[in-house]
Amino acid sequence: MTAMEAAVEAWREALGRDKVGDSDAIRQSFARTALPESRIPRCVLRPTSQGDVQAIVAIAQAHAHPLYPVSGGKNWGYGSACAPEEDAAVVDLSGMNRILEIDGEMGYAVIEPGVTQQQLYEAVKEAAPDFWVDVTGAGPDATIVGNAMERGFGHTPYADHVRSTCGMTVVLPDGRILETGFGHFPKSKARHLYPYGVGPMLDGLFSQSNLGIVTRIGVWLCPRPEAFSFFYIKVPDESRLCDTVEALRPLRMKGLLNSAVHIGNDLRVFTSLDTYPWEATGGETPLPPAIRTAMREDAKLGAWNVTGSLTGTRAQVREARRRMKKTCRHLGDVIFVDDRKLALGKGVAGLLDRFGLGKALVKNLSALVPNYGLLQGIPTRMPLQSLAWRLRKPLTEALVDPLESNVGLIWLAPVLPLRGADAEAIVQLATPLFHAHGFDLPVTLTMLNERAMVAVFNISFDKTVEEEAVRAAACYEAVTTTLLEHGYVPYRSSLMGMGHLVTPGDTFWEVARDIKATLDPARILAPGRYIP
Amino acid sequence: MTAMEAAVEAWREALGRDKVGDSDAIRQSFARTALPESRIPRCVLRPTSQGDVQAIVAIAQAHAHPLYPVSGGKNWGYGSACAPEEDAAVVDLSGMNRILEIDGEMGYAVIEPGVTQQQLYEAVKEAAPDFWVDVTGAGPDATIVGNAMERGFGHTPYADHVRSTCGMTVVLPDGRILETGFGHFPKSKARHLYPYGVGPMLDGLFSQSNLGIVTRIGVWLCPRPEAFSFFYIKVPDESRLCDTVEALRPLRMKGLLNSAVHIGNDLRVFTSLDTYPWEATGGETPLPPAIRTAMREDAKLGAWNVTGSLTGTRAQVREARRRMKKTCRHLGDVIFVDDRKLALGKGVAGLLDRFGLGKALVKNLSALVPNYGLLQGIPTRMPLQSLAWRLRKPLTEALVDPLESNVGLIWLAPVLPLRGADAEAIVQLATPLFHAHGFDLPVTLTMLNERAMVAVFNISFDKTVEEEAVRAAACYEAVTTTLLEHGYVPYRSSLMGMGHLVTPGDTFWEVARDIKATLDPARILAPGRYIP
Repeated sequence: MTAMEAAVEAWREALGRDKVGDSDAIRQSFARTALPESRIPRCVLRPTSQGDVQAIVAIAQAHAHPLYPVSGGKNWGYGSACAPEEDAAVVDLSGMNRILEIDGEMGYAVIEPGVTQQQLYEAVKEAAPDFWVDVTGAGPDATIVGNAMERGFGHTPYADHVRSTCGMTVVLPDGRILETGFGHFPKSKARHLYPYGVGPMLDGLFSQSNLGIVTRIGVWLCPRPEAFSFFYIKVPDESRLCDTVEALRPLRMKGLLNSAVHIGNDLRVFTSLDTYPWEATGGETPLPPAIRTAMREDAKLGAWNVTGSLTGTRAQVREARRRMKKTCRHLGDVIFVDDRKLALGKGVAGLLDRFGLGKALVKNLSALVPNYGLLQGIPTRMPLQSLAWRLRKPLTEALVDPLESNVGLIWLAPVLPLRGADAEAIVQLATPLFHAHGFDLPVTLTMLNERAMVAVFNISFDKTVEEEAVRAAACYEAVTTTLLEHGYVPYRSSLMGMGHLVTPGDTFWEVARDIKATLDPARILAPGRYIP
Repeated sequence: MTAMEAAVEAWREALGRDKVGDSDAIRQSFARTALPESRIPRCVLRPTSQGDVQAIVAIAQAHAHPLYPVSGGKNWGYGSACAPEEDAAVVDLSGMNRILEIDGEMGYAVIEPGVTQQQLYEAVKEAAPDFWVDVTGAGPDATIVGNAMERGFGHTPYADHVRSTCGMTVVLPDGRILETGFGHFPKSKARHLYPYGVGPMLDGLFSQSNLGIVTRIGVWLCPRPEAFSFFYIKVPDESRLCDTVEALRPLRMKGLLNSAVHIGNDLRVFTSLDTYPWEATGGETPLPPAIRTAMREDAKLGAWNVTGSLTGTRAQVREARRRMKKTCRHLGDVIFVDDRKLALGKGVAGLLDRFGLGKALVKNLSALVPNYGLLQGIPTRMPLQSLAWRLRKPLTEALVDPLESNVGLIWLAPVLPLRGADAEAIVQLATPLFHAHGFDLPVTLTMLNERAMVAVFNISFDKTVEEEAVRAAACYEAVTTTLLEHGYVPYRSSLMGMGHLVTPGDTFWEVARDIKATLDPARILAPGRYIP
């Protein structure tokens, strides 16, 4: 029996046979990713309790067997459930999916790592109707904890998931249980209400790293506002991205805008509506300008399309609308939609008539409407459709698990100042590189705070077209390198990008590595993930 | 020559004689604290550059000499510049006081640790007039970095100083320079705009700890609102603290209230107005109920006094006023003051006449007016007057450096849920213990976020009255122990309280200690500070 077989046997004994999978089918299933490359794990472990996780870690230590914990594995364009190195034992935490507490007065939930967006959404609707869960566009099955640990962001005023998590329980690589914040004080009253605790703050160590397995977390829920208005700004002129950002920043700085605001280009909306027009283009990539313009006009889209929400009391929303209209109308149409209007208009098409925008906008709005729900914390599968953009054979039914098809996707998410010139610069840097590799640049810019945005670039490809996958990887390399050279660093990374972040001799990574060596000297936990 | 003398000599050689002080006068001056006990340092080192700090650390390592870094040493009721152990070399960073950058567009400053509140206030007024600096009540000479590293809080909507610092430079105990966030990426565009960087977040390790010396930090400035209104709610009925908190929470949750809101009891306001009425009480402590009531009526104060600000556009502030009035008028008078009213009323007295509140309120308002300025980020020396509360010999002039007089003060700052029952509970727990030790309980409750408050209790005493200092220490012990037993943990600690926070075998502190051993194996940096 090899050391690896011995470890698998030990896990079987400790956890029970049903919690350990090492059939080829299971291993292949956890190797799936939308990235060009993948690694096959040795086995998949399915703990259902913190005790299971401790047992898993103890055996990994005894057999020096690397582990790779995932919550739901829905980390689509960054690597899904796939480990960065071969032969890991994937720790699939999706079976630890208890909602331990929902406090409908103070507005928080305490959850295990397997809890999905849909699950928490439904539970909160029931138990804390005055609050929203902030969710991302990663779909109903994506987990809350997985996203929080990658420092992701959603759409409501609680979009920043670092700021809205409070109090973690972590199984350390040696099996000890760490409670962050005030959690390690017996009977602490503010464990999930005040995030910093007393003494050093350790929470930051466990996001984007490989230092512990989070088994429990407090999540703040967004107070449901008295009034809500969706807004859509259609900016027809491609050259006005800079102006658009400059117009929006003061609104954000003044607190008139407090949801996450998304600025998407036409290409980004196209990817949500349909697959690439292989026929019309005769297979040419990127999209020829004339076809792109025709598609944009056909869908009555802007070159840039801004969506977000205004929330507050009725009077506050009224005021924010007034100010937004005043500040942004020089950019293009500014449209506001609230629940009342949606109801009056009897659905999307009716609504468009009311606004005199014509039937052609139905397509457009149907791409924007998922955002309407996301802005109120309602999970949706719809944005996942964009993953299918480059498939040669269009899907015959809606995409539920993107990995079941052949979608290829790499996400690239550089942070930039919330400044028009930087938005312009980053698009100018990336576009020629995307084109040179035969790709379009679908991009969304999201305002994360009053001072910074994240750009999300999609490199979409078809995994069945081998040379396209190769080009996708080359494009990723080229864009990542160029952006880093210009000081645009990603806020999170795909498995392919982690190496780019580390420069030898950089004290930051040396310290991270020192801490890794202290907490996990045998390197059993997610080797290769962020910390080198 | 002893090892200690050798270290001092080496520092003299490396830094120059003028940057090393070890005269008795200097050593005594850095031993001063308002706490009952103090420690005398071996010497005081005064670096003026990061290179100096590196040289200091290298020599400390070579001679195994403990260091104790302080920025301004104005950590009044928590220990000032005093080290937790004897014979430290105090590293006085007040000479590193350059403001390296102020960005008046994106609203941030980059500063060294010696920069004071007044200094940054003045520089920002000049260079970034659209922004405020968030300052605390610790006075104009207190530093920004010192407070941020203790995770303190101010009064504007940017009150939470963890959330408003972004990007640190740290000298590690071995002399390496660590840049947190995106700072370690060359040419990073978002270094002081996006706080989290990529990979693990290390910033949290350096607040409330002893793991590094921060030499540079980015501070976000609060966008100056278009409209501002101070509010004061006078709650006459002592038993309505619970109702007051319950009335305010929804306003905070809904975002109608976004400044730090302070709820102070009458005693807390008395301490700002005058010293203890030794004569009227015939020396009796605590304040006899009849005298307390008379003083309260004389000053036309509430039993509870709520102050804060409403900010936003004119229409938003109007709306917030309307809602606050509606929500809070059952508690007592709700008074709003803005700059226009202040000007119209020709100062405080005129203003009071306009409100028909009578001259007696002048005293009251003069205690509240420093808050008016603090809510707009204007530093003031006024709250420091409260430190003199228990002096037997009243001061003949305004207190500039409290340590020059004999003021005794211990602050105790437990965190509690933003819930009426907890506010009530914490006051009920503390009051009898304060009384049993011969002290009154001046208390302020500050809303830090939508879910938690910090209570600040003052134990004021006269350092010339030895037995009172002993009682103060005993009171602190008793209250700290009781509050911890009930799950109310402090958000920061005085030197006297750090031992209370650590339970043997607590994984949290074990991990902190492991990290300390990794970064500072010789324990040269601030031994005894937070991490055991």
